[in-house]
Amino acid sequence: MAIEGARARALTFDVFGTVVDWRGSLIRELTHLNLDCDPAEFADAWRGGYGPAMRQVASGEIPWTNIDALHRMILDELLGRFAVTGLSEAAIENLNRAWHRLTPWPDAIEGLTRLREQHVLATLSNGNVALLTNMAKHAGLPWDCILSAELVQRYKPDAAVYQMAAGYLGFTPAQVMMVAAHPADLRAAAAAGLATAFVARPDEHGPGGPIESGEEFDLRAADFEDLADQLAPPTPE
Amino acid sequence: MAIEGARARALTFDVFGTVVDWRGSLIRELTHLNLDCDPAEFADAWRGGYGPAMRQVASGEIPWTNIDALHRMILDELLGRFAVTGLSEAAIENLNRAWHRLTPWPDAIEGLTRLREQHVLATLSNGNVALLTNMAKHAGLPWDCILSAELVQRYKPDAAVYQMAAGYLGFTPAQVMMVAAHPADLRAAAAAGLATAFVARPDEHGPGGPIESGEEFDLRAADFEDLADQLAPPTPE
Repeated sequence: MAIEGARARALTFDVFGTVVDWRGSLIRELTHLNLDCDPAEFADAWRGGYGPAMRQVASGEIPWTNIDALHRMILDELLGRFAVTGLSEAAIENLNRAWHRLTPWPDAIEGLTRLREQHVLATLSNGNVALLTNMAKHAGLPWDCILSAELVQRYKPDAAVYQMAAGYLGFTPAQVMMVAAHPADLRAAAAAGLATAFVARPDEHGPGGPIESGEEFDLRAADFEDLADQLAPPTPE
Repeated sequence: MAIEGARARALTFDVFGTVVDWRGSLIRELTHLNLDCDPAEFADAWRGGYGPAMRQVASGEIPWTNIDALHRMILDELLGRFAVTGLSEAAIENLNRAWHRLTPWPDAIEGLTRLREQHVLATLSNGNVALLTNMAKHAGLPWDCILSAELVQRYKPDAAVYQMAAGYLGFTPAQVMMVAAHPADLRAAAAAGLATAFVARPDEHGPGGPIESGEEFDLRAADFEDLADQLAPPTPE
């Protein structure tokens, strides 16, 4: 395990679900708005619209559209489906920006702060640059660099996203380790030549959500503190 | 003055000369290497090669080449011109990365830390992403986001660079203020619709260097602390 850690010069992070608790954060914002709908159901439906919307972009069915705009398209549809009325345009736009205010998992900031001592830390998210920048500022996430699928106008798991990250950071793909809670993201990163670290986020989808094992990846960690422990330089004898 | 400050949501910074003292830093690194040449003369020649090299890229004479590679091309030529011998390939490459280790002006970190409380702070430099990321990590520069001409493969003063920054940060050009010690950079930013703040760096080129007035720009500041004073929200009566 220490060998992969020693090779990795930069760590690139999936963000939604891996660094921040999108579901808990959205439920809190929706509950606070006191809308006439179930906040958990609405949050799950909002996130559920994200994969299909990205695939419409990937297939060319719709032109390049960033995540802020996709979130808003899905939100507008959901407000109709859930028959939510009475929100002004400013209130809807503010709700859409709930994604800029997602809360990190409890271990995230301390773990990232430790990891940053030895590695370059960058986001590598399908979220757009402004969303990731505002989220980092709001939550105090200590990134060295904000990298986003938006920079190549392709969404993960397109190989171009992972290759872009290594290129901009000035490393070979093998010198970069992708950190994510999602096996599909890590498999695509591995196929692009990156090292991989799986971080378990069993609460991402709420109670009874799927549990991933991550056995196929270079490292498996219980959280970012555990990842920092595993990637720490070997103690001299 | 406070009006322009109130409008600006993000500040984008020129880096070489505006945030960091490239000349003093290079002279220190070159002096430490104890090469058989005058460190100040070598530093000025290295920086002097940068404009012509960028213009070769802008004119299409050579294909897109990032600053790390341009610095290396110029360095290789200078080692010949100054008849410097005895450096290994690793030592030359390490010297080229002196640009990743440039030292901030004395007011920079404290000023940026204050400015960051009210604004999104991003680099907007011709330096490549890896260079800017490594420099920030090395010097402790508190950027919210690293933006670089490399992201559009055009060098400032191309309007595409300034427009890219506003777009990625999610603001209109008028909501972004370019901060630089160089009138040509600020004139191009203004032409692209950005607000402008001139920061005096009279020591950039060493003793007897040119002094710019900056009178034509929205704000003029003696340093980043002064800029933070001018952009501070008005005190309630």
